[in-house]
Amino acid sequence: MKKLPAPLTVAQIAALVGGQAVGDGSRVVESVAEVASAGPSDVASLHNMKYLAAAQASLAGCLLVPPPAKDAPCAAKAKIVVEDPQAAFALLLGLIDAAGRSRVAPGVSAKASVSPEAKLGADVRVGDFSVIERGAVIGEGTTILPQCYVGENVKIGKNCLLHPRAVVREDCELGDSVTLHPGAVIGADGFGFTTDKKTGRHTKIPQIGNVVIGDGVEIGANATVDRATLGSTVIESGVQIDNLVMIAHNVRVGRDSVIVSQVGVAGSTTIGRNVILAGQAGLAGHLNIGDGAIVTAQTGVMRDVPPKTMLFGTPGRPHREAFKLESLYGRLPEIVERLKELEKTLGAKT
Amino acid sequence: MKKLPAPLTVAQIAALVGGQAVGDGSRVVESVAEVASAGPSDVASLHNMKYLAAAQASLAGCLLVPPPAKDAPCAAKAKIVVEDPQAAFALLLGLIDAAGRSRVAPGVSAKASVSPEAKLGADVRVGDFSVIERGAVIGEGTTILPQCYVGENVKIGKNCLLHPRAVVREDCELGDSVTLHPGAVIGADGFGFTTDKKTGRHTKIPQIGNVVIGDGVEIGANATVDRATLGSTVIESGVQIDNLVMIAHNVRVGRDSVIVSQVGVAGSTTIGRNVILAGQAGLAGHLNIGDGAIVTAQTGVMRDVPPKTMLFGTPGRPHREAFKLESLYGRLPEIVERLKELEKTLGAKT
Amino acid sequence: MKKLPAPLTVAQIAALVGGQAVGDGSRVVESVAEVASAGPSDVASLHNMKYLAAAQASLAGCLLVPPPAKDAPCAAKAKIVVEDPQAAFALLLGLIDAAGRSRVAPGVSAKASVSPEAKLGADVRVGDFSVIERGAVIGEGTTILPQCYVGENVKIGKNCLLHPRAVVREDCELGDSVTLHPGAVIGADGFGFTTDKKTGRHTKIPQIGNVVIGDGVEIGANATVDRATLGSTVIESGVQIDNLVMIAHNVRVGRDSVIVSQVGVAGSTTIGRNVILAGQAGLAGHLNIGDGAIVTAQTGVMRDVPPKTMLFGTPGRPHREAFKLESLYGRLPEIVERLKELEKTLGAKT
Repeated sequence: MKKLPAPLTVAQIAALVGGQAVGDGSRVVESVAEVASAGPSDVASLHNMKYLAAAQASLAGCLLVPPPAKDAPCAAKAKIVVEDPQAAFALLLGLIDAAGRSRVAPGVSAKASVSPEAKLGADVRVGDFSVIERGAVIGEGTTILPQCYVGENVKIGKNCLLHPRAVVREDCELGDSVTLHPGAVIGADGFGFTTDKKTGRHTKIPQIGNVVIGDGVEIGANATVDRATLGSTVIESGVQIDNLVMIAHNVRVGRDSVIVSQVGVAGSTTIGRNVILAGQAGLAGHLNIGDGAIVTAQTGVMRDVPPKTMLFGTPGRPHREAFKLESLYGRLPEIVERLKELEKTLGAKT
Repeated sequence: MKKLPAPLTVAQIAALVGGQAVGDGSRVVESVAEVASAGPSDVASLHNMKYLAAAQASLAGCLLVPPPAKDAPCAAKAKIVVEDPQAAFALLLGLIDAAGRSRVAPGVSAKASVSPEAKLGADVRVGDFSVIERGAVIGEGTTILPQCYVGENVKIGKNCLLHPRAVVREDCELGDSVTLHPGAVIGADGFGFTTDKKTGRHTKIPQIGNVVIGDGVEIGANATVDRATLGSTVIESGVQIDNLVMIAHNVRVGRDSVIVSQVGVAGSTTIGRNVILAGQAGLAGHLNIGDGAIVTAQTGVMRDVPPKTMLFGTPGRPHREAFKLESLYGRLPEIVERLKELEKTLGAKT
Repeated sequence: MKKLPAPLTVAQIAALVGGQAVGDGSRVVESVAEVASAGPSDVASLHNMKYLAAAQASLAGCLLVPPPAKDAPCAAKAKIVVEDPQAAFALLLGLIDAAGRSRVAPGVSAKASVSPEAKLGADVRVGDFSVIERGAVIGEGTTILPQCYVGENVKIGKNCLLHPRAVVREDCELGDSVTLHPGAVIGADGFGFTTDKKTGRHTKIPQIGNVVIGDGVEIGANATVDRATLGSTVIESGVQIDNLVMIAHNVRVGRDSVIVSQVGVAGSTTIGRNVILAGQAGLAGHLNIGDGAIVTAQTGVMRDVPPKTMLFGTPGRPHREAFKLESLYGRLPEIVERLKELEKTLGAKT
């Protein structure tokens, strides 16, 4: 349960989220809460019809519901019918977040180390013990929380947020409204070396490219995006990357794609737009993943993936085929029994 | 080999670990060592009867052994019979650790940045370049090593240890005797957004909950535990989490559960008590994992798991079934041969 | 495209890389570029005959090619034939890297915290907010970039490079020319505890060993190498470790082995020389992996692996067997059809 910055009537909330109030529009709520724990002064939300029964029992003062639940009887004091209750609820959470979430103090901390040769836009904030190297350019309204590292000639756009301990190595570029979560590392060397066939010794291939990140991208905690050998590793605008993800050198991730926690993408693979890579999936290098493809959790992708295909398994197969195989795999004992039966019938020895 | 803080007789060690000395109790040892490399002034340990042969050949001055090895002939000069030799050995390692392991100097480093509005208990130590934001409350005896970040209104209990570069974001709570290993990130934003079905664009759902961690919990190096969207992500007392583990928003991990390296647990999943998740296992979101369940390494869990069940495979199946299927899978070439043979016998064309 | 520190003629490049110029040796190039985007003032490289067609169409001023491509017609203005074009190209990248890549300023930053009881060799550089604890010994020519942590009694060899936020905990040892990428953690506690069978409670086993790293090793961003319980976790010379890899306590990794991103190796496993562990592979504890073995991506290794074996799958099998099984798995629908057919022929009921 979290308090709203100010109490709101059901009617006010309905107006705010573009929904339709059902019941007492003058009712006042003070906080947001989860369906199960909400009380009469809370607003809660039914994101998904799957949880309708729980929502119907909720004692919330106000319940956000999708149109199919419009007429469902509910214990809540009032309802607001809205196309996407989750988005509406997110909007309320945002009110609290904007009001209550602390950020670093305005200006540059005296305990930071900012090169006189770096250029900081208006209202840039830099926290304690952060380092901004020479040649870095930081756009207006960007906040760099404590203990971050911004290397030489890095370009960071406007209104970005770097959480504590984010690292952006030299020459990398971030667009506007990019968020780096704690411990994210942008621009570490790609994993490249040549190996002497006789001695088995490795020689590093210098990694002199960079990483270019578009607008509105989030990179999760302790995730890593390596710099290109030459040229750029590219994360296009709108991409959402979760914690502990690994994006290797020279990869390109297309606009609005979603990469869930612990996914690994090997070098030079190109990922289309609105692709979803679910948790712990792994993609080999030099592949093309088509727009709108979905790679399910833990799947291993070794070949190109056509657009809008859903893959499952290691090696990944189109999901219908994969689910069929998976089901037959579960029937192996029966298959062997039937085989034995046939052998017996035919008088064959097993 | 590591020196004990002071030489000990076999009898003294036996008393210390609650064991029974066999042989010369007045014999003095000075160090702990591994079985294979131990010499006459070392104490070593047979943790597991599987390694009995190696232990029998060990030239250790003193060997800790479990009851079944009581009468086994050994090259060691003396034996101590004890119920759990590994726990006894851990106790000796602890003597060395307590004596020799350095910590940060007492007090708050002049190079740290501690808000005057933070409250530090007695004997709290804060290392160089650590940041403690306003409203944070740190319990007595807690040590915060260099370069850590403790956000606003964070509550940390007594006798905790934060290794270098641990991050605890605002509003999170740690119990007593919690250890965060280097690079651990507590309270990064959960991975939540809504997606516009028409444009494919994502809008962030503000993550305004927190993380609540019980007593005696360890969180491994570079592991991440995300804050809840609303409410709390909960790690109950006694839980052991290894390096590079990902715990997503709104997850609850029950008391004394063990989560091995690189495991990922997706959002809102509830894990019971004394559950074991082995390395690289992945759990989908919104699941219930029963008390005492064991998920083997790399297993992918897509459904609820009953208590005390052991799962294997992706998708995870109860291990007896999974091992049977795995064995039949290995016999596929034979199965196909038998099928061919039948087809031949029946005069069928292949 | 990246400028060389100075323009070079084709003949000069041929001499530098030990190759043979074909065409106009006096032609001047100014930059390196990728094959697809190279223009007349760029040098590019055909690493692999697989990409011959693209290389033939390249408009590069100078193209590095392997001997089999010596006589292939090319659009490039000049060619240099060289045994290993990738190594030759790496050499050119290295010229740019050495000239252009920034490092921290000479000397020890006034904003670092270096114990007076640490010993720094000649030309050691220490960046802002790095911490060097007492008893640490740093070899000449080593660079420690900002925000690193070097614990008590750590030994670091000559010409090492620690990127921002690398952590080396107490007592660990690094050889010469070691590179730690941002966020790498060396020497965190191994994951060890004893569990009380009655209560299910865990007691930590103190981890008092260390990590010993040989010469020329690279450890990737946010990777973790845990200290031994007793004794040492060992990474031998020449080993290349990628981002987000987990090496557990008491593991030994043999010379020149390669460990790709997100691999996990459990405790006490011994890995031979020139082993390759591909991305997201997982190895159980207490195993022996023979010299030259290859573990393919996402493979789970539960048994010892003989030298020069290639494994695939979970559980990992020798790759010929694994590929055969995988192929039969894909034919399960056909197998079931054939079984049905036989049953029909025999008049058996299904």
